[in-house]
Amino acid sequence: MNKGSLIVISGPAGSGKGTVVRLLLQDESYKVSVSTTSRQPRADDIPGVTYNFVTREEFIDMIANGELAEFAEYVGNFYGTPIKSINELMKSGKNVILEIETQGALQIKAKFPEALLIWLSPPDYQTLDTRLRGRGTNTDDDINQRLTAAKRELQFLNYYDFIVINEKGKADEAAENIRDIVRVDKMSTKHRSNFVKDFYNT
Amino acid sequence: MNKGSLIVISGPAGSGKGTVVRLLLQDESYKVSVSTTSRQPRADDIPGVTYNFVTREEFIDMIANGELAEFAEYVGNFYGTPIKSINELMKSGKNVILEIETQGALQIKAKFPEALLIWLSPPDYQTLDTRLRGRGTNTDDDINQRLTAAKRELQFLNYYDFIVINEKGKADEAAENIRDIVRVDKMSTKHRSNFVKDFYNT
Repeated sequence: MNKGSLIVISGPAGSGKGTVVRLLLQDESYKVSVSTTSRQPRADDIPGVTYNFVTREEFIDMIANGELAEFAEYVGNFYGTPIKSINELMKSGKNVILEIETQGALQIKAKFPEALLIWLSPPDYQTLDTRLRGRGTNTDDDINQRLTAAKRELQFLNYYDFIVINEKGKADEAAENIRDIVRVDKMSTKHRSNFVKDFYNT
Repeated sequence: MNKGSLIVISGPAGSGKGTVVRLLLQDESYKVSVSTTSRQPRADDIPGVTYNFVTREEFIDMIANGELAEFAEYVGNFYGTPIKSINELMKSGKNVILEIETQGALQIKAKFPEALLIWLSPPDYQTLDTRLRGRGTNTDDDINQRLTAAKRELQFLNYYDFIVINEKGKADEAAENIRDIVRVDKMSTKHRSNFVKDFYNT
């Protein structure tokens, strides 16, 4: 059984991450790692599926014990990814997807240098603006905040390995490009050390 | 017009480089860079196609003027790749293939850090041995020398970016994998700087 890859997918609100991740998950070799949170479960939550729920104290213990690959506090609640879940999924041969924001992504890169950091981007700024407004659920203030946030993320971009462009109506193409990135990465020399050893020892 | 990629393909004698390169060239976005040599043209040579022919003195001038991306002396004759030919092909949007040995490959990497160094490998040592013997044109001494050379090349492998395995009868798959590597590389953040600039300046 070959070890799976670790894939971090980030991108501005309106980049279409949710759709692309759903498309990737149609391939059973891909799995998302379930996040752990200290927030209260909501009616539509399924423990162990949408999130793993712990108390605030338990979450702080996990931080202190170095059990988290990344975490962040958002509106008073903690959200994070246990190292153990990532490792178990990868060992079982799954390509593990983490859909997280930039600061979490950099924490992952520090702990898993082999992780593939992929930035999903709308084709242009205008499209980003249109997508955010098109949702209809956001106020103008909200939208402007998100657009400003998108510009601020620029400084993190250099830490990403790949930029995949999600063209209008072509989420399947973006997903296919991500699958290609993962497939090609497995041919990189750093992942072929067993092959090289076997080849020259015979 | 997007700049083409520079692709170095190396591999032991018997790895099937010739076949794979021929398959890549069926796609017109791929071109081989014609080498320059100081050896005498032979009856089947076509100047400017098989090689560019220069005198030994002219070749030494090219070395002294830093015009060569890589060169080597083999059985008393010089063989090398002019930097200018690589740059012109890449600028015209072509993916430039160099089929060269390990020491030349490392010279290329030093001069063109963005070059993709690809090691084409038979699936296993036994296959390599069989392929070399199957040619029938080589003496036992010759074959053993080539097998020893293959083992010696191991120390260069870490400088290659990818190892592509050329399975028996599947050269088309190996060529397709190389095309995927080139395509995926164009999505890497280092090649997306124009996209990022355009995106955030609008």
